[in-house]
Formats: sequence, C-alpha cells, structure tokens
Amino acid sequence: MQIGMIGLGKMGLNLVKNMIRNGNEVVAFDLNPESVELAVAAGATGATSNADLVSKLNGPRTVWIMVPAGAPTDSTVSDMVSLLSEGDYLIDGGNSFYEDSIRHGKLAAEEGINFFDCGTSGGMNGALNAGNFMIGGPSAEKFEHLKPLYEGIAEKDGYLYTGKVGSGHFLKMVHNGIEYGMMGAIGEGFDVLENSQFDYNNEAVAKVWNHGSVVRGWLMELAEEAFSKDDKLSAIAGVMHSSGEGKWTVQEALKENVATPVITASLYERYASMTDDSFTGKVVSALRNGFGGHAMDMKK
Amino acid sequence: MQIGMIGLGKMGLNLVKNMIRNGNEVVAFDLNPESVELAVAAGATGATSNADLVSKLNGPRTVWIMVPAGAPTDSTVSDMVSLLSEGDYLIDGGNSFYEDSIRHGKLAAEEGINFFDCGTSGGMNGALNAGNFMIGGPSAEKFEHLKPLYEGIAEKDGYLYTGKVGSGHFLKMVHNGIEYGMMGAIGEGFDVLENSQFDYNNEAVAKVWNHGSVVRGWLMELAEEAFSKDDKLSAIAGVMHSSGEGKWTVQEALKENVATPVITASLYERYASMTDDSFTGKVVSALRNGFGGHAMDMKK
Amino acid sequence: MQIGMIGLGKMGLNLVKNMIRNGNEVVAFDLNPESVELAVAAGATGATSNADLVSKLNGPRTVWIMVPAGAPTDSTVSDMVSLLSEGDYLIDGGNSFYEDSIRHGKLAAEEGINFFDCGTSGGMNGALNAGNFMIGGPSAEKFEHLKPLYEGIAEKDGYLYTGKVGSGHFLKMVHNGIEYGMMGAIGEGFDVLENSQFDYNNEAVAKVWNHGSVVRGWLMELAEEAFSKDDKLSAIAGVMHSSGEGKWTVQEALKENVATPVITASLYERYASMTDDSFTGKVVSALRNGFGGHAMDMKK
Amino acid sequence: MQIGMIGLGKMGLNLVKNMIRNGNEVVAFDLNPESVELAVAAGATGATSNADLVSKLNGPRTVWIMVPAGAPTDSTVSDMVSLLSEGDYLIDGGNSFYEDSIRHGKLAAEEGINFFDCGTSGGMNGALNAGNFMIGGPSAEKFEHLKPLYEGIAEKDGYLYTGKVGSGHFLKMVHNGIEYGMMGAIGEGFDVLENSQFDYNNEAVAKVWNHGSVVRGWLMELAEEAFSKDDKLSAIAGVMHSSGEGKWTVQEALKENVATPVITASLYERYASMTDDSFTGKVVSALRNGFGGHAMDMKK
Repeated sequence: MQIGMIGLGKMGLNLVKNMIRNGNEVVAFDLNPESVELAVAAGATGATSNADLVSKLNGPRTVWIMVPAGAPTDSTVSDMVSLLSEGDYLIDGGNSFYEDSIRHGKLAAEEGINFFDCGTSGGMNGALNAGNFMIGGPSAEKFEHLKPLYEGIAEKDGYLYTGKVGSGHFLKMVHNGIEYGMMGAIGEGFDVLENSQFDYNNEAVAKVWNHGSVVRGWLMELAEEAFSKDDKLSAIAGVMHSSGEGKWTVQEALKENVATPVITASLYERYASMTDDSFTGKVVSALRNGFGGHAMDMKK
Repeated sequence: MQIGMIGLGKMGLNLVKNMIRNGNEVVAFDLNPESVELAVAAGATGATSNADLVSKLNGPRTVWIMVPAGAPTDSTVSDMVSLLSEGDYLIDGGNSFYEDSIRHGKLAAEEGINFFDCGTSGGMNGALNAGNFMIGGPSAEKFEHLKPLYEGIAEKDGYLYTGKVGSGHFLKMVHNGIEYGMMGAIGEGFDVLENSQFDYNNEAVAKVWNHGSVVRGWLMELAEEAFSKDDKLSAIAGVMHSSGEGKWTVQEALKENVATPVITASLYERYASMTDDSFTGKVVSALRNGFGGHAMDMKK
Repeated sequence: MQIGMIGLGKMGLNLVKNMIRNGNEVVAFDLNPESVELAVAAGATGATSNADLVSKLNGPRTVWIMVPAGAPTDSTVSDMVSLLSEGDYLIDGGNSFYEDSIRHGKLAAEEGINFFDCGTSGGMNGALNAGNFMIGGPSAEKFEHLKPLYEGIAEKDGYLYTGKVGSGHFLKMVHNGIEYGMMGAIGEGFDVLENSQFDYNNEAVAKVWNHGSVVRGWLMELAEEAFSKDDKLSAIAGVMHSSGEGKWTVQEALKENVATPVITASLYERYASMTDDSFTGKVVSALRNGFGGHAMDMKK
Repeated sequence: MQIGMIGLGKMGLNLVKNMIRNGNEVVAFDLNPESVELAVAAGATGATSNADLVSKLNGPRTVWIMVPAGAPTDSTVSDMVSLLSEGDYLIDGGNSFYEDSIRHGKLAAEEGINFFDCGTSGGMNGALNAGNFMIGGPSAEKFEHLKPLYEGIAEKDGYLYTGKVGSGHFLKMVHNGIEYGMMGAIGEGFDVLENSQFDYNNEAVAKVWNHGSVVRGWLMELAEEAFSKDDKLSAIAGVMHSSGEGKWTVQEALKENVATPVITASLYERYASMTDDSFTGKVVSALRNGFGGHAMDMKK
C-alpha cells in the first residue's frame, strides 16, 4: 500500500526502508532535506512539506508520523487533521504520552480521520527488518485496513491491535517500564559479579545465560554483544539517561494506587546515576556532621 | 560416560533421563525407593545406598548430587568424600550457597577428589531436554573430563566452566537475583495494565511482546503460556514465595557495598506478599492514630 | 478577632475551641447541626448556612474552611468567592492539593478576596492546644492581618508565611511525605527488634530513645504512648492506610525528576499492606510455577 | 565511682569530662599520649598502658572501652579479659557489631568478668553533657552496680538495661537503621522543596516544623541549625558516607526475613551518592545503546 512518512530520524528512515522492502510505496518528508534525500535514495518519493506529502497520496490516505513526542507530534497531528480528509488514516508511531494520543484521537475523529496510536518497539534493527507494534485505534474493523502494512513490516506475530485510542501508547509505556526494571536487574547482577571474589568473563556469562537459562532474552543478548566489544565496558560512564516512559509508568501506577517498587527502583537508580551532588545528599551529610561530627565532603 | 546420580526429585529424575538419552550410563539412588524405581524404568541402574551407588561405578567415578541445599547436601557430600577415591569427580548440581560449596570443595580436595559446584538453570524442562549449567571447580583442565557429559545434556552453548570452586553456585545465585528483578518488573507491568482504563488481553500482550519487542525472553514466554490458561490468573493467590537465592544475592551485594535497589525491591515485594499483618504495619497504624486520630484496622 | 469557621469535624471543632480560648470570636457552620451545637457549647455563634455565616461577620471578614479536600473544598471555596466581598480573607486550612489551592487563589483574587492556603500539622491535639501552620497567600503584607490569629492558636514559632498561594499546601504535602518516611523507618526498626533473638520491651525502647538519642521526636513519643497501652500492639492489624499527601509528594518529585526512594518505599510499603493478592503476585507466582514447578498458593 | 576509660577520641574524651563532672574518678588511657594529656587536663588520672590503667583501679574494677569497632575493640577486650579479675566490670561503649559483643561476652564470662555491651547515642554533645545508652549484659542484677554511673552521665531516663549480652549493640544498630531512614526522608523532602516552583527558606521551614509539627525532633533541629549557617548548603557535596550500622540493620532484617524497604532505600541512596560510575550504570547504558542507539556518556 501507499504510506506517507513524516519524520526521517533513525527510526523513521529504517521504517521507510522496511516498508519499501515489503512492497509498499512511500512518500517521505522531514524538515531536514538531507534526510529526505536518504529516503529517496532508499526508494521513497520525496516531499517538501506536510501539505506536499498529503497531495502526493491517493485516498484513502495513510500517514505515519514518526517525530519526537510532545510539541513536534502535537503540531504535526494538528497539521494532518486539517490536511487529511474524512476516511483517511493517521498513525502516530512515536513515543507519545497516551493522554496526548487520546486527545489527538478526538481531534482526528471530529474530522472523520481514523487515528491510530502505535507504540513501536524492537529498536532500530527492528524498525529496519522486523519491528514490534502495539496499536490502539477507533475499532478493530478500521484496523483491518492497516493490517497488510503491519503484516509486512512487523516480526511474525509482532503486532497487535490493542483496543481504543490511547491503548497502544499506554502499552508501549508499560513495556518500557518493564524494560527499565529488567535492565536494572541485569545491570545490578553484573555489578555483583564484578565486585565478587571471582573472576568472571562477562561475555561468557551472558552467553551461557542466553542458552537455556531462565533470564535469557533479547536484553541478555545485547549484554553479550556489548561485553564482546569490551568485557569491562571501561570506556562507558555509568550514567543512565532516561527518556520518559519509565517515569510515566510510575506516574500511571500511582494514579492507579498500584505499587511498582521494582520499576520505580530502576527509575531512581537512573536518576541517582545522573548526579553525585543531590540536595538530599547535602542535607544528610550536614545532619551526620551535626550529631556525630562526621566529616563532610566539600565542593571543590 | 558413567554417572552416579544421588537425589531423584523433579530435577534429578529429569537429569537422569536427559543423561541416558544422551548415551550416558546412570546409577541412581534416592532415599525414596519409588523414585529409584522411576529411574530404573527410565533405564538407570538402581542403587540401594550411597555406598552401593559408589560400588557400582568404575573409576575414575563421577557422582552428581541433586538433593536439597543445606543439611541434606552437607551430609551427602560428607558421605561421598569418605566413599570416593582420589581422582574421582563429585558434582553438586543443587542450589547450595556458594560458601558451602567452597567448604565442600576443600573437604573433597583433602582426599584428592575433584569437586565441582554446578548451578543448574532452565527449569524442569531444561533438566529433561537441554539444561543450563554454570560450573565452578578446581581447574579448567579437570573440567575437560566432564565436558562430554555437559555437551550432551546442556542446551547448545548452555554450559560454562566459571572458575574456581564456588564460582558456579555464586553465578547461579546472581542469575536468580536477576530473575527475581525481571519477574517483579514483568508482574508490575501487568498489574499496571490490569488496573488501567484499557481492556487488554494479557495473553495477546505477552505474545506480541515475545515477537520482536525489547522485553522478549523466556520469562515473557512463560507469562504468555500462563495467561493462555486463564487470562486473569483468577485462581492463583498473589503470594510470592522465595527459596533463598534472591536473598543471598542481596546479602552478597551488601558485603560488597554494591547497591542493588531493583533486585532488593523484588525481594521485599515477595516478603510483603506473604503477610498482611507485619509489625511495621501495626506500628505505623498506631502512629497515624496517635497524631491524627485516623481509624485503625483491628484484628478479627 | 472574628473568624467564620466552616467544617466542624475533629480538626475544625478543636480549632474553634483553640481560637475561642485565645480570645477570638467564632461563627461556626457545619452541614451537621449536631456539630454546630458542639461549637456553640464551646462558645461559638452558630450559623445555619454558608450565607448565614457570612452575614454574621463584620468586614473585613475572615473565613476559615476546614472541610475534606477535593469536591467539598471546591464547592465551599466557590460559595465563599460569591458570598464574600473585596478585601475579605479566606483561609483553606484543610489538606487540599496545592494545585487546587492555586486555582482557588485565582478565583478569589478575581473578586479581590485574599486567599490563603494553610497546611495544618500537629494533629488533633495541636489543633486544640497549639497547632502548626504553613501558610501561603498573596503577600506577606496581607498576611499581617492574620498574624494575631495564628500567634494565638499556634505553638510558639509554629506558623510561617511560606510565600505565594500554593506554597502552604505544597509544604504541608512535603511535610507529610517526610512523615511517611520517618514512620516507615520507625515501624521497620521495631519489626527488626520483634523478630530478633532478643526480648525487648518496646515501650522501654521508645522511652530510652526519646531521652537523648538521635531519633527522638514526636513520632517516637507517640510510639512510646502506643506501646504503653499494648507492647505488642496485638489488637491492631498491620494495615497502613494513606490519605494522599505521600502519593502527591512522590508525584511532585517525579515531575521534578528528583529521586525520593525513601519516601516512595514508605508509600509502597503501605500499598502492599493493603492487599495480599496483587496481580503482580499472581504473575510472579505463575512464572515461578512455569519454569520451576514451584507450588502456587491458590485462592480459597 | 571509679572508671577506667580506654580510648580518648572525640566520644571518649567527652565521656571522660561528663563522668568527672558527675563526681566519678577516671583513669584514662589512649595510644596517643596527647589525648591522655587532654584527659588529665580535664581531671583524669593518666595511664600509660592497658595494664597500667588496670593497676590504678580498685576492685571491683570498671573499665569502659571506647575504641573503633572491629580489630581495635577485639584486641582491647582480649587484653582486658586477661588483665581484669573475677567480679570486675567491662563495658564496650563503641559501635561493635552485636555478634562480636556476644563473643566478647563469652570470653569475659569464662573469667568471671561482667561484660556489658553499651550502645551510645546522642552524638558528641550527648557524650559531653547527657548521653543516651542502651546496655546489654549478664543480668539486671549485675547492672545495678553500674546504675549510678549511667544515672549521672545520661540524659534523664536516657539509659536502659536491654537484656542479655548483645542486646545493647543490637538495639543501637537498629536505632541507627531508623536514623538512616529518617535522615533520608528529611533530605528528600528538602530536595523536593528545592526543586519546586516555590522559593522556600529552608531554615524557616525547619524551624516551623520544629514547633508543633508531626516531624519535629532532634534531626529536624539539626537541619535548622545547618540551614542557619547556609540555607543552600552550597559548600557541602551531596556525598553520603556510612559507617556500617545501617548496612548491619538490613543484613539482620534479611536474616529475619523482615522487609525493610525504607531503611534499605536510605542505605542504597547513600551508596549511590558515593559514585557516578557504577558497573550497573555501564551495563544499562550499553544496553540502551544496543537496542535504541541512545548515546552513551563516555569516560573522560
């Protein structure tokens, strides 16, 4: 089928290649003309604006937005809602917060546009070869129209219509929350090994765990690969960034009064790695000095 | 090769079948004669005691102990150290604490017996078909003698000589610590889904996550299987037992001054599920009543 | 001075008595006429409605709202904004979420009414005898008008103008977050004592800690008092309710990207005490059964 | 009464002054002669060795050891057990691990020496003016002999005979565990304030909280004092050291299968503040890069 792709970053461009390889026709736009050129080189038709992209698609049109969550997605959805026509399909494949997606879905529905919020997992490699997609939208019937697209670009059995609008991005959010917890557990395990009396080869450990153990899985495979390059990861700083979904998961859990100590611990572990100078630390250090005369580390 | 197997519980018996299927000859003993009969039915030679088992093996003998950790393993190792001869091989394939294994290794070494501490993962199915083994022992050279055995019964690339005695069970312990964290994260994720405004089919969620997502792995496959039987797990109580390795991992981390907030959270989450009447809870409830007059739940 | 008090629950009624004892004149209203009678018995003038209460006050009027947070406070503030006049003073002394207070402050300001959000601590006893108050409002100058009131009803040095509207309830929220963490730590400490090999008298422990130790404070005094009634708290169930401020503190911390592992742990500890049948627990139990054949507790 | 004091560090020397002020006679020894001179200047009799100190005391002798926990305490106790006589009293007032104290108690009991393990709280100021003491020992009857000493140097009601040997240091350990949790909660609360939209004066906040609020106590008074010197603690680094008792509390709780999420969180928070380069962090960062191409911070 024919798809308009807006946003040609590392994920968007890989998806374009995946779509083309699977027999789809892609019209591609990005604010960066060089990215459009890369898409054209991969077989896409280039567009010079959102409007130009829409004009190059036949109805009922299908547009896939793959731009950063928040303001960029907001404004692109807003544009599309005015440019597209009743019966067209609009997919947000980015990492939008699910409440934004619910709002986008309402905006689109007012114009008769079928809005789908599509959480995308599987990383860059998945986007290129066989991705993983969790897709919310107006109805299972409407989703039938998009099935051939997903059947091609997804890993076998790697896509799911998850229910009403918002449910796709909500599910992707929770997926990432689980991912945070799993990564924290794996990291801590290797930390305990590194500080033990034994002399493990981390690559060998990850490898044996990937062949028959309970903790086998893609994250452990990635660990094996990382250790194969440098078993002590000596050039990498122990600083763990986060891009929001873990925090959102905890925030949603709090709204639901659901305890998520494991996922939350993995989030705070990341926060703590970002600073060695929290105000909490200053206060505790000052209190220890206050009652016990314990020396405080001072700022240099 | 020829192996003596002591302990024919769910794991031991499956290992016997695995060994026989892979061309090994097994002499089997268990305190329970019915278990010995099952092993005999599977093709093993039955033994009536530890001594009888040893007498039925040709030197250099290889004996695999698969009995509960702690006192049962202690006494079996002790027996074997007196029954076996210099140059024989003794494997503890159970879930022993690694410091016990170091002690066992010293006892065995005094008699010239080669002691290996073998952490076994992969569950019952792995034991039966293709297990996962992390094996510490006196030297890589001595391990060569056991390689043909493991090559047969393990998943491809699913065994590793991990270094000196104790390192096998230590690694298995950390593996289980990671497993605790991963399971906690997965459980919490589905808890957030269950309490959300959306109506997910948990089996379908686990299935899509198993096909291309970042969190795919054996635990998610087991989740899919569990949900396939009852999507709401309605007959299962939310009580999480634990058998020690998670606690050991945290204890070792504390000895190393390594923070393991994720793994620890998963351990405490299990503890909390075992009671709804902790003393902590009584104290906090009494304090709330003390300053704010908040009602307390009373024991019935 | 003259104060109109709306809401005569356990806190409101105690505040009325405190105000009267300190030479203030109080007009009191509650939806429950019996509560109004109690206030009248304590020396207040009764009112039959919000409007009646306002009509009985001289300008510039001061009205103190002490009703449950959320909808009851919303509607009372709304009523007062229409009933009061420019230059009047309106205090919300309840446990409102600070963003609600900011909203209430804007509504009031549009009518020229001076809105103060007053976090109240110190429990029922404090309300009655000498309370603790954290008060946000339009300006320090406007707060001068209320100083004589607080000077009388507060513990010496026990009130503070905290800055712009919202800052009073925000500070009270954080106060409660700290309180959650402190209570959790105290509860856990006594739990470790109870499960130790030693035979402590908890009342004696709390008493000695209250006389010179680092952990002395009001909460430990309340613990001593609770243990004096029953050293094992045997009639109290270990169930820890929570009324929102702890959760709000964590939610605000997340918005700020500030890690609060201690306060969060105390919140989750409460949640966990409320159930022994979480979905997390069901999933983890099912997974353990899946790979290891571990028995599951089943629902009765 | 007459006391021999071994160990004249910041705590020991303050205790000597406290004892002398309360009418006791002190013989003082420290490996550092300058410390002995300070004790002599304060009114003590100096000793030149453990043996010299013992020789200068009349029977039944009372010796108070105030040296670092671990090896120094071990060797001093060992010395005293050989130097003292049946019926003498030996007090370890330091921060020994309670199992060491149980061992010390057995050694002493074999020689008929009455060994007491005395946990000391209240900081340096308490040691000097009115301390807090939790004392385990052979029996309540034997403790009667020491009562006059504690009655003088302790805060009123600030000492307690806690039961058999080990119970004093165990209780002090748990006291410190609670202290960790309370300090973490206080630190986090101020961190949330610092990062809020409001502009609080931390000293004023701590002050108001100290006058009637639920969280009032000595730690909050110390916070007020610290903020009075610099409201932003700008010269202090956010690094939280720990000296062992918090970790011990968690380790004991694990032995008891008691969940202590709050105290544990405060411990890990300290560990995390000590490094911004954990191996956990390296692994998580490498995994994020592996699946999502997320940039890693590299070591400089």
